[in-house]
Amino acid sequence: MRAENRENNALRPVSLQVGVNPYAEGSCLIKCGNTHVICTASVEERVPLWLKNSGQGWITAEYGMLPRATATRTDREAIKGQSGRTQEIQRLIGRSLRAAVDLQALGETCIKIDCDVLQADGGTRTASITGGFVALYQALQTLAQQRAWAKIPCLHTVCAISCGVYDGQPLLDLDYQEDSHAQTDSNFVFTGEGALVEVQATAEKVPFETDTFLQLLALAQQGASTLTQLQKEVLKIGD
Amino acid sequence: MRAENRENNALRPVSLQVGVNPYAEGSCLIKCGNTHVICTASVEERVPLWLKNSGQGWITAEYGMLPRATATRTDREAIKGQSGRTQEIQRLIGRSLRAAVDLQALGETCIKIDCDVLQADGGTRTASITGGFVALYQALQTLAQQRAWAKIPCLHTVCAISCGVYDGQPLLDLDYQEDSHAQTDSNFVFTGEGALVEVQATAEKVPFETDTFLQLLALAQQGASTLTQLQKEVLKIGD
Amino acid sequence: MRAENRENNALRPVSLQVGVNPYAEGSCLIKCGNTHVICTASVEERVPLWLKNSGQGWITAEYGMLPRATATRTDREAIKGQSGRTQEIQRLIGRSLRAAVDLQALGETCIKIDCDVLQADGGTRTASITGGFVALYQALQTLAQQRAWAKIPCLHTVCAISCGVYDGQPLLDLDYQEDSHAQTDSNFVFTGEGALVEVQATAEKVPFETDTFLQLLALAQQGASTLTQLQKEVLKIGD
Amino acid sequence: MRAENRENNALRPVSLQVGVNPYAEGSCLIKCGNTHVICTASVEERVPLWLKNSGQGWITAEYGMLPRATATRTDREAIKGQSGRTQEIQRLIGRSLRAAVDLQALGETCIKIDCDVLQADGGTRTASITGGFVALYQALQTLAQQRAWAKIPCLHTVCAISCGVYDGQPLLDLDYQEDSHAQTDSNFVFTGEGALVEVQATAEKVPFETDTFLQLLALAQQGASTLTQLQKEVLKIGD
Amino acid sequence: MRAENRENNALRPVSLQVGVNPYAEGSCLIKCGNTHVICTASVEERVPLWLKNSGQGWITAEYGMLPRATATRTDREAIKGQSGRTQEIQRLIGRSLRAAVDLQALGETCIKIDCDVLQADGGTRTASITGGFVALYQALQTLAQQRAWAKIPCLHTVCAISCGVYDGQPLLDLDYQEDSHAQTDSNFVFTGEGALVEVQATAEKVPFETDTFLQLLALAQQGASTLTQLQKEVLKIGD
Amino acid sequence: MRAENRENNALRPVSLQVGVNPYAEGSCLIKCGNTHVICTASVEERVPLWLKNSGQGWITAEYGMLPRATATRTDREAIKGQSGRTQEIQRLIGRSLRAAVDLQALGETCIKIDCDVLQADGGTRTASITGGFVALYQALQTLAQQRAWAKIPCLHTVCAISCGVYDGQPLLDLDYQEDSHAQTDSNFVFTGEGALVEVQATAEKVPFETDTFLQLLALAQQGASTLTQLQKEVLKIGD
Repeated sequence: MRAENRENNALRPVSLQVGVNPYAEGSCLIKCGNTHVICTASVEERVPLWLKNSGQGWITAEYGMLPRATATRTDREAIKGQSGRTQEIQRLIGRSLRAAVDLQALGETCIKIDCDVLQADGGTRTASITGGFVALYQALQTLAQQRAWAKIPCLHTVCAISCGVYDGQPLLDLDYQEDSHAQTDSNFVFTGEGALVEVQATAEKVPFETDTFLQLLALAQQGASTLTQLQKEVLKIGD
Repeated sequence: MRAENRENNALRPVSLQVGVNPYAEGSCLIKCGNTHVICTASVEERVPLWLKNSGQGWITAEYGMLPRATATRTDREAIKGQSGRTQEIQRLIGRSLRAAVDLQALGETCIKIDCDVLQADGGTRTASITGGFVALYQALQTLAQQRAWAKIPCLHTVCAISCGVYDGQPLLDLDYQEDSHAQTDSNFVFTGEGALVEVQATAEKVPFETDTFLQLLALAQQGASTLTQLQKEVLKIGD
Repeated sequence: MRAENRENNALRPVSLQVGVNPYAEGSCLIKCGNTHVICTASVEERVPLWLKNSGQGWITAEYGMLPRATATRTDREAIKGQSGRTQEIQRLIGRSLRAAVDLQALGETCIKIDCDVLQADGGTRTASITGGFVALYQALQTLAQQRAWAKIPCLHTVCAISCGVYDGQPLLDLDYQEDSHAQTDSNFVFTGEGALVEVQATAEKVPFETDTFLQLLALAQQGASTLTQLQKEVLKIGD
Repeated sequence: MRAENRENNALRPVSLQVGVNPYAEGSCLIKCGNTHVICTASVEERVPLWLKNSGQGWITAEYGMLPRATATRTDREAIKGQSGRTQEIQRLIGRSLRAAVDLQALGETCIKIDCDVLQADGGTRTASITGGFVALYQALQTLAQQRAWAKIPCLHTVCAISCGVYDGQPLLDLDYQEDSHAQTDSNFVFTGEGALVEVQATAEKVPFETDTFLQLLALAQQGASTLTQLQKEVLKIGD
Repeated sequence: MRAENRENNALRPVSLQVGVNPYAEGSCLIKCGNTHVICTASVEERVPLWLKNSGQGWITAEYGMLPRATATRTDREAIKGQSGRTQEIQRLIGRSLRAAVDLQALGETCIKIDCDVLQADGGTRTASITGGFVALYQALQTLAQQRAWAKIPCLHTVCAISCGVYDGQPLLDLDYQEDSHAQTDSNFVFTGEGALVEVQATAEKVPFETDTFLQLLALAQQGASTLTQLQKEVLKIGD
Repeated sequence: MRAENRENNALRPVSLQVGVNPYAEGSCLIKCGNTHVICTASVEERVPLWLKNSGQGWITAEYGMLPRATATRTDREAIKGQSGRTQEIQRLIGRSLRAAVDLQALGETCIKIDCDVLQADGGTRTASITGGFVALYQALQTLAQQRAWAKIPCLHTVCAISCGVYDGQPLLDLDYQEDSHAQTDSNFVFTGEGALVEVQATAEKVPFETDTFLQLLALAQQGASTLTQLQKEVLKIGD
């Protein structure tokens, strides 16, 4: 049985709190069970050098974890430097959120998404994408208003969810306990329309068959549909 | 007039929320106006090398700020490394909290205090000390229970507060706006009995007379007395 | 039309040259078209600290590129440090090759796979996995002989291939020109039996439908089957 | 009894040797007992980026110690990087010396003060400030002459001294032996007129009462008065 | 007896393969016995800052070794940073090759020589200079053609060779085994006309007399003459 | 004419002041004209890991320059890290001084030589070797006394000097002005008996003939003979 009698295809309780930071152009505190991530979106007028005079904007992301976000304290990255895992995660978040935005319409503006994990109980990278999108969208709204744009330059909503095979069973939205014992671990990023933005699946212990993979994909589609709805609600995006 | 009609000798609204982190041995979310700091205390059985076989424990602190804790985003220290300012602050927090603990009675145990600023509006280092003490004390309680100690190895409660001269007036508990225009800036760390643990005063623009300094000290004593009382309440420490 | 009139489902000419390094326990020079990677396997008696006294071995990988492996020279990582991309790739190679080995049977031995790209024309990470497996297997053979093992502690052969959508067409084994214009980019790692070890798919420009993804998967299975056969030939592994 | 029968309120023998470096615009070798520091002032036409076009100048300081300045060799910071202690000290020196200068009158010029400790026997940071001021003033004299200024843009002379409580006694100007056993350790920076520029007091072992603190302050005022007089003599500054 | 019955004044078999890299403006794979180095020359339009608007070009070199170029694997410099030895070698290569070029005639162009050791069996720095010159010359030919220069801006061919005293005997072109036991180790860089560009001789174990040094110099002159001839052949430089 | 009417074969005025540091086991302030270097020798009981249980000692050197040792201030290496030039110099000093010592007789002891340049006017690396030897010898004397050795474990005195070709003339002991315009630059390290420990010659602008090189060698031998005599005098080493 899963913790709190959760069904195999059930998400943990999710909440998205918009505008939690008084300074940022956009912000969201996402809670997926015991995983809590603060996401902020910061607008900067400067784009990276290689986009100068391109007329195009950019979205980039950074990821961090408070040292005691986890059961055992981990060393502070400000002291030991960013790990390969951290860099991999923030590259994934950035790539995923760029898919949400019409960079041409944004113009030469850079939006930095910071995802800082206050508490970690599995699924921090997917929570960062789901919450990061909310912060990003709020910043786009702010910009649209400031610059009197006719339209928010957002192409899709974007959300993400993890799945895995645990004890032979495909499960949706793994917590840390499940994740660290999973045979297969996967992360899916979707648009609100259900198209795929990113797929990552890893055989942690045993290689997996195509069929198993398709089961995980199906579970993820189901979870993403719920997350999309929630995002639209808190952001007041109509269908 | 100060923001929110605050008197010159008034603290901003303070709250101390104990036990906010589900994993840490001790934790406290301190809010002083718009300055919010999460403090956690992590117990480790290892002491630094130079204390090995000394029978004595150690308290150490680390300090960080989320990139968008401030009005303008600051670069992440995990990427650019810890600034001199950060190192100076965490050395101050560690020194101040060590004064609270009977290191001999603690035995060869290290407690790491992490102070992470979620929002910054002036006074983050003093809030870190005041909130860090609460997290530390909770960890000492936990340890005392686990190890069946007769007594919590705490010598004093410790709290801290800033003062400054702004527009010629001595003020208690500066917010960011006041701090960045102050002529003199000072931080005081006190024990619950009113003795001094640390004094730091800096002439930001004009050197100051001894008299001015004594006025700041008096204001600080008054603020510290309120903070001490609050710490004792939330930690249920009797007189 | 693809370069050299290649069919959409055709691999570039591949060669695997075993034993090219006179010092390494295992080595392979893999050429996939103009992508050339030297892979070496180095046996070390020490395992990482966290595996000490576990009785289990470890496989780890490092990846590098000569500065002029590419059309335009890139700065040397020995000077600027490893990029996030490099770290991500070497984590992928290590994970993929660990799936090939019976770590328990290997015992407390570490095998380091170095993949150094002499020339890059797309697909360097998948070539590194395919060639890295050959170097690894040769090292396992060497070890098996030295230690008089009854059996080479290899669970599966492992190979990898990239696919992508270019100009609306699903293509197998992208070269650099195709890769840098692809709408979707994906990498698949397979065992010789056709099970999946790792799946990574990214929407470079437009989110992709599940159907498209399944077409890429099918192409990859076909390419992997050819690579597996070649690996078995050069390593003289019977069916 | 203190070393060399020194009275509790006596400075160690001090000497200020001006112009010891043949290249620097200003320089001073300060000796306070066995503490010897070479201070140089280097004039640069560039100000930090954030002062560009402000019309204002800047004073900054760096601090270092030769590896064998101390009884036991310490590792070279060029190899291990600057410690938190070093950064804290050089920030203090810079802040203290900025108080001496009329930055507006200086114009867009930067003066870098380098304080390199040849031998350390306690009080290196206060000696650096006292000697650093002499080097700085000499550089200002040089500049005033070169640029035909009517007046040297110096607002105050600045000097610094340490005090502490050792064995229950307040002492002026601690040597290393006293400093490392002090119950309270403090550093005071003064202008020549006796106003305070910086106060730092730390309870090394036991928190201290306000009265004790005031005794230390009184001792420091007395020491600073002697140092000021000496600075004026060697720099030929009249009253 | 030396390995493979080599005479004391004999070079190992040398080969220079020109144009091995499909992207670089110049390239050469040099093999001196078991020492194999890939050298590439990359043309960049930017000169270092201090040469801007000087009308003059620059030649610079970088050196690296694949981790398993040696009998025992060495840690990757991309992870641990460049060693002092590496920096010393690449400074030597750069200095030596600059002597070959008319920097004024080159104009504001920078040529970067990358020397990456695939296999190391002694003499990697001298092989890098000899092979690096070939890559450099090919790049100068390319440039001369592109820019329709009347003359290739090359002043001299440049090559290098090592000598040493082993077991009391002066030997030409040491392999690793000889090098690591040599009493004296020396490297000589020559122009094709036999003038000296660089001399480095080190007493590894016992100081050496002037006479011994002159014997080493004579051996080196002989070896350099052979290398010069080979360079001219592969580059089709007439006398 | 050279500065101060110096003859081409004349050294600048040299002085060796022994025992200038009150803490180090050995120390020497060497002044060669305006080049001033403080050398200290620090004895440590630990040898590098690879010498553990070898019964053999080690000599190592570090080199630094105060930021304003030069006409123009150079950035502090504690901030920007050691340059390749610094590493090359300290490797040379270490190698040269190791030749002076009977490492077997020294036993498992490490002596660290720190050479810190207070003022630089050319020839800082050779001055460091000459002064470093004096500091080293004093430390060996101290050790011999402490450990009641019958003999100081010193095989040779060691000194070093630079020569160069300037305006077509071979010159001994170049100052900065000469050095920066020299056509050829060379450094020679000798034992007191006149044998060579290290030879380094570089064609700065024009390759040089063997004859020129031999003239430089002859000049260097002459200068070294004077330095050796001075070393023996200050160290009271008889012939």
